Amino acid sequence: MRVPAIRFTGAGGVEVIALGEVDVREPGPGEVAVEIAAAGVNRADLLQRRGRYPAPPGAPPDVPGLEFSGTIAARGPRAGLWAEGAEVMGITGGGAMARRIVVHERELMPVPAGVELVAAAAIPEVFLTAWDAMILQAGLAAGEPVLIHAVASGVGTAAVQLARAVGARPLGTSRTASKLARVAGLADGDGLVTSDGTFAAAVHARTGGGAAVILDCVGAAYAEENLRALASRGRLVMIGTMGGATGPVPLGMLLGKRATIIGTVLRARPLEEKIALARRATAQLVPLFERGVLTPVIDRVLPMTACAEAHAHVEADASVGKVVLRWA
Amino acid sequence: MRVPAIRFTGAGGVEVIALGEVDVREPGPGEVAVEIAAAGVNRADLLQRRGRYPAPPGAPPDVPGLEFSGTIAARGPRAGLWAEGAEVMGITGGGAMARRIVVHERELMPVPAGVELVAAAAIPEVFLTAWDAMILQAGLAAGEPVLIHAVASGVGTAAVQLARAVGARPLGTSRTASKLARVAGLADGDGLVTSDGTFAAAVHARTGGGAAVILDCVGAAYAEENLRALASRGRLVMIGTMGGATGPVPLGMLLGKRATIIGTVLRARPLEEKIALARRATAQLVPLFERGVLTPVIDRVLPMTACAEAHAHVEADASVGKVVLRWA
Repeated sequence: MRVPAIRFTGAGGVEVIALGEVDVREPGPGEVAVEIAAAGVNRADLLQRRGRYPAPPGAPPDVPGLEFSGTIAARGPRAGLWAEGAEVMGITGGGAMARRIVVHERELMPVPAGVELVAAAAIPEVFLTAWDAMILQAGLAAGEPVLIHAVASGVGTAAVQLARAVGARPLGTSRTASKLARVAGLADGDGLVTSDGTFAAAVHARTGGGAAVILDCVGAAYAEENLRALASRGRLVMIGTMGGATGPVPLGMLLGKRATIIGTVLRARPLEEKIALARRATAQLVPLFERGVLTPVIDRVLPMTACAEAHAHVEADASVGKVVLRWA
Repeated sequence: MRVPAIRFTGAGGVEVIALGEVDVREPGPGEVAVEIAAAGVNRADLLQRRGRYPAPPGAPPDVPGLEFSGTIAARGPRAGLWAEGAEVMGITGGGAMARRIVVHERELMPVPAGVELVAAAAIPEVFLTAWDAMILQAGLAAGEPVLIHAVASGVGTAAVQLARAVGARPLGTSRTASKLARVAGLADGDGLVTSDGTFAAAVHARTGGGAAVILDCVGAAYAEENLRALASRGRLVMIGTMGGATGPVPLGMLLGKRATIIGTVLRARPLEEKIALARRATAQLVPLFERGVLTPVIDRVLPMTACAEAHAHVEADASVGKVVLRWA
């Protein structure tokens, strides 16, 4: 089936973003076709547009979009988890900015009751990333202080809510005081402005022993300061390297603190891991949205035809929370 | 009680090693006094002698020795785990190179049946370090390839045996071909000479996908090559920084491989963790020595009065396995 889609006509700036069409196959055994209502914009889309983050095998190379919400449009043989018309959301290795996508039915999560279908597109990538990294992998526990870099970002605003939901104490950083002010309600006043890249002393002053967990998207530029900010037996979990992919790490401090550095990405995971995460999130995260403990934080919703505008807005580092693109 | 002890008269070379005496207090509630038969030499003793690794609080500042074997000489109030004369072994934050030491009774492990009392002094530090780092923390599982640097060292020879015991496939490195030949029986011919500091290509050639776990005592000098040698979702566990404490780490590769770097030390752990490790090792490691699956690998046994000679031998990087000092 041929459907409308955002396509990258090459590698470059927003001028390579075009509205075109893409072929979507029929769902096979255990698969479903989702009519996409909306897709969230991620920094990975911008990297992919510039040719620096190619789509993994199985994903369309030139159709961006790593997360979506929509309704079940068709079911393949032996697909029985969802009724036609059911509202679902999910992450994917690419292709979410088409009008339709085919995925394994077990990769999907239900749109939480009380969340608008379009708003649900702001949930999967950032909440699954923050939850998987900070809680499942780094083991953030009630009572522990957690340092969340770029707290006004999509992942940051999700992470603050998740930290609070599990009884941990979030401390957020931002390079911009005005952004910090806009998430003050989320971050509980525990924000740190890090315009000069230092924060370890402030973290120790506020926590006593340092951060039990750090959720970091910066990488090399913050590596040494992150190790300083960590508590004994602390866990530094890296979900991005926006501040450099290689840099000096004080390994002696890593030993002395008996600390751990965890690198993680969602996109490149094999099907079995994506399914496992989606099923677990259905059991453990979706109810928290339904109870109002978690809320998608949306900077703005634009029509899919304004994809270039959305990229420019995210690239300008001007958003607080997610930018969502809707089809209708 | 005043007992003979090795003492460091200052910070420096082997000339600061002297045989003197030290006061040992009576055992308090839950504690026992151990008459020490022998103590293993560790690189940490050499660092401490040079003034670069001060003893933790509670350990004597100038009496080295991080592991020992001996017999129960006296029991404090409410100490009921051991009979007087029982043969025990253990790790300690310092002071093992005295004729007597007082420790909490639950920090001790029994000398495995079939292991000589003096030889047991070669067990605690290296087997607990390798087991805790490689298996308990890095989660090495049956079937997985594990890269063990400095395989001819005390920790290395312990790690190879432990890897084999859990059904993993050890691959050892050494900078010296002759040392590798001496541990060929342990390393199953899977040794790599790394005189130029490269090994990742060889690890991939032998394993297919890379090492699931790397046990590393080198630190900065091997950090980049270690990341290259790791498999997807691999765990790099660092127990030392003999090749530098700070160096460039390819964090982008850490993310891409979804890898983990774990820093660990035994010495600075609080009592509750040392007790927990000793109890678990009593249940899980001691039986493996009794069944002959694990064996202490001893380079040589010298009298305690030859402590300076022992330090010089370890410092010359000439030993394969442990150097042990005995009192009688």
